[in-house]
Amino acid sequence: MQDIQSGPANVPLLIDRVGVKGLELPIVVSDRDKGAQHTVALVDLGVELPAAFKGTHMSRFIEALENWNEDLSYRSMKNLLRDIKARLSAQSAYASFAFTYFRRRISPASGAPSLLGYRCRLAGEMKNDKPDMILDITVPVMTVCPCSKAISKEGAHSQRAEVRMSIRMKGFAWIEEFIDIADASASSSVYPLLKREDEKFVTERAFASPLFVEDVVRNVATALKRHPHVQWFRAEVESFESIHAHNAFAIIESHAAD
Amino acid sequence: MQDIQSGPANVPLLIDRVGVKGLELPIVVSDRDKGAQHTVALVDLGVELPAAFKGTHMSRFIEALENWNEDLSYRSMKNLLRDIKARLSAQSAYASFAFTYFRRRISPASGAPSLLGYRCRLAGEMKNDKPDMILDITVPVMTVCPCSKAISKEGAHSQRAEVRMSIRMKGFAWIEEFIDIADASASSSVYPLLKREDEKFVTERAFASPLFVEDVVRNVATALKRHPHVQWFRAEVESFESIHAHNAFAIIESHAAD
Amino acid sequence: MQDIQSGPANVPLLIDRVGVKGLELPIVVSDRDKGAQHTVALVDLGVELPAAFKGTHMSRFIEALENWNEDLSYRSMKNLLRDIKARLSAQSAYASFAFTYFRRRISPASGAPSLLGYRCRLAGEMKNDKPDMILDITVPVMTVCPCSKAISKEGAHSQRAEVRMSIRMKGFAWIEEFIDIADASASSSVYPLLKREDEKFVTERAFASPLFVEDVVRNVATALKRHPHVQWFRAEVESFESIHAHNAFAIIESHAAD
Amino acid sequence: MQDIQSGPANVPLLIDRVGVKGLELPIVVSDRDKGAQHTVALVDLGVELPAAFKGTHMSRFIEALENWNEDLSYRSMKNLLRDIKARLSAQSAYASFAFTYFRRRISPASGAPSLLGYRCRLAGEMKNDKPDMILDITVPVMTVCPCSKAISKEGAHSQRAEVRMSIRMKGFAWIEEFIDIADASASSSVYPLLKREDEKFVTERAFASPLFVEDVVRNVATALKRHPHVQWFRAEVESFESIHAHNAFAIIESHAAD
Repeated sequence: MQDIQSGPANVPLLIDRVGVKGLELPIVVSDRDKGAQHTVALVDLGVELPAAFKGTHMSRFIEALENWNEDLSYRSMKNLLRDIKARLSAQSAYASFAFTYFRRRISPASGAPSLLGYRCRLAGEMKNDKPDMILDITVPVMTVCPCSKAISKEGAHSQRAEVRMSIRMKGFAWIEEFIDIADASASSSVYPLLKREDEKFVTERAFASPLFVEDVVRNVATALKRHPHVQWFRAEVESFESIHAHNAFAIIESHAAD
Repeated sequence: MQDIQSGPANVPLLIDRVGVKGLELPIVVSDRDKGAQHTVALVDLGVELPAAFKGTHMSRFIEALENWNEDLSYRSMKNLLRDIKARLSAQSAYASFAFTYFRRRISPASGAPSLLGYRCRLAGEMKNDKPDMILDITVPVMTVCPCSKAISKEGAHSQRAEVRMSIRMKGFAWIEEFIDIADASASSSVYPLLKREDEKFVTERAFASPLFVEDVVRNVATALKRHPHVQWFRAEVESFESIHAHNAFAIIESHAAD
Repeated sequence: MQDIQSGPANVPLLIDRVGVKGLELPIVVSDRDKGAQHTVALVDLGVELPAAFKGTHMSRFIEALENWNEDLSYRSMKNLLRDIKARLSAQSAYASFAFTYFRRRISPASGAPSLLGYRCRLAGEMKNDKPDMILDITVPVMTVCPCSKAISKEGAHSQRAEVRMSIRMKGFAWIEEFIDIADASASSSVYPLLKREDEKFVTERAFASPLFVEDVVRNVATALKRHPHVQWFRAEVESFESIHAHNAFAIIESHAAD
Repeated sequence: MQDIQSGPANVPLLIDRVGVKGLELPIVVSDRDKGAQHTVALVDLGVELPAAFKGTHMSRFIEALENWNEDLSYRSMKNLLRDIKARLSAQSAYASFAFTYFRRRISPASGAPSLLGYRCRLAGEMKNDKPDMILDITVPVMTVCPCSKAISKEGAHSQRAEVRMSIRMKGFAWIEEFIDIADASASSSVYPLLKREDEKFVTERAFASPLFVEDVVRNVATALKRHPHVQWFRAEVESFESIHAHNAFAIIESHAAD
């Protein structure tokens, strides 16, 4: 049968990235506490396509994914990228796995356990043989508004917020370390299971530490700057303001000079 | 050209509803304060298809919509449904318009104005010549937790919540009336623009009226039962709990016996 | 500490359903081929609340879920509903698990295997001791337009479509049986991995069987009516028309008289 | 009342961007054919915050937006950014308006008119007094697969696809010019209203021009390179493959050296 893809391009332009998007896949991820955990990933895969070729061979991405039977990690991501480069004779390969990472949380007063899911994404790009990887982690937290607290006779508006971190590493770190950074940066962490004594504890802890999105993003940035294995980061905090129907946000990106 | 659709069905089964989904359209909606307002709708249109016919004529839905140049209202919805029935020789026709309805809010202390968008949907079905219409309105509000307030030395967790009402009318009512019902049922209404004195006012008002989702949905249901033009309703309150990553919800539907 | 929830309601109205929404959880589901598979569920849990009580105890839902350590099945759903009823002293309990179910597909010509994910949901409600369960399954398929094929000199527009089935059972059936019904009802099934000979096979098979959404939904309804363990169903087909930016849809619901 | 925001930061770090997200607003946009059109925008606004200040004044963004009563354009965006900078005493300001732009399409054979909505976004950032603006436009189109066509006895799989362009301009251009570029780059454009003769025309035109996502993105890139007022662009094509449940994509970004 004719191999249309290998024919000459009508328009000889380099394509930065071409591939497949939105493949769903059960995966296993390393887990600091349990060794490994099962979850589900949404996967994108791509390569660079030289100007001379009409098309890439899309089915080879699926073959690479079917053939890749390792737990998701920095090392296995490197293996997958190498395999994609080889199968598609490409100069550069790209892969992204978006998944929910589960962590057992212990409620702060009664010690009741429950599982909380964190949206994560590990994306890698390999040019030559050197992979560049970015880890994204979203951590739901609670914020209490310092302004509302200072000016009101009673109370202060609080709300759920999200800390989103994108991190380029220069050494290994657990997802749990970044969850801890986000939790410690907000008015309080959140939990699936809170008994009455826990709800009291969380409320009082949060009201003892009222913080703007500006404060939270600065706390996160400070901790990420200090982390020995973080080479670059972008931190965003988005707060679902309870007194508005819109959100507040703040972003800090680390810079070369930092 | 061959009219495949009008041919006999391979399988002679009545189809309850067949049509088009996800058409976007700029529309004009009646506005209690300004007379009319411009917004954008996502439109679904359908008919019942008798067992004898292979297919419906999808392009006629678009023609009906293109030809329908009225402001969206109960009356114009009726006209559209009649036109679809006629164009498609159908026993029953269906139309749904999902749109954002904008209302000017005045902040409670400083009187500062700002526009707030409410997600709405008007859906109508016409069998014979009698239309059945359901209006959906979603109102963002604020809730303060009574339990958290009672047990904590200081503060109480608050959060954004949504009141969602589905209403079958037996007389005319403005969208504004249902927004007012939702606002009055919660710990506080929300506003796009709040100056510092407004934020103080909203915080203090909300903390003076702590309410569970159960309380809010009962307040909404009570007001809808009393409204002279509401024939049937379903009310749901969903609260984006600030101490959790999950939500709390409560639903009351009116019953024939009510 | 004060138990606010157990106090009297301000407004003594029965609440049809109150609970928690959007909990994420890793689960294990029975798998016809492998025995069991790991996936992730989005969970909603609720109960009916009598008019006399102010509020439900939200944390008990999470405790029930944490305590429930079975694979998801009709039997284990029944156990969970019974446990929720008991923990919350409720007359009726509700649970819904939305998850992706993975099935190995074999490409039709080369026999190449790959995993395809199907969006599913199992929802159960228990009043007294009798559970009512609904299974939802969404199956992506391909449709070729019979009208376009009949009137064009060459080709016909094809597109991805989704078959969505909601099923109330009166006996056990595998998810795989309903995937097979949807696949056999469309112009062709879809696959993650297709080699060139498979792509030729799928294209030719689809063009040999051009079908409107009306045809597909009637095929699905016919097969579901014949299935010995289906008591009630609602079937919807939505086709992402390639010649439009909007979709076509068709719905058949089984009726008591059927 | 206390102005907490103007107080000193606990952690003196520059915040790259802080502001509000997700405000909905009815707007008027310039329209090449009709002069102006009404639509609805989702608005994000932000500023840079120096290391010395604890917080920004979020309500001033809403005041700027309420006060800005111009049609959306490059010029009015500049005015809004200047106003935000002034109101918040900021070194840099950011604004983004995401909206649907409607254009009347004429079907290719029968000449029947219908409105098609295109998702657009205009984002501007002003440092000092120079604004940098990016326009995003998404155009739904149709693709026919050249490989499927070449190897199959009959037919070829086709599908809806999206062309997404992000453009930095060095002169004025209408949104319509970029819609035309996307349409001309694909196998066919799509239309809301197609009569039978139009469906024949579109099918035959698409099958006469089978194109991979790679071909389409190269066609788009070539046309954008030639456009006299395009300074930089990123073009992505994503095709909702009808033989798969996943998508194919291709991206070309213009480079400094181009």
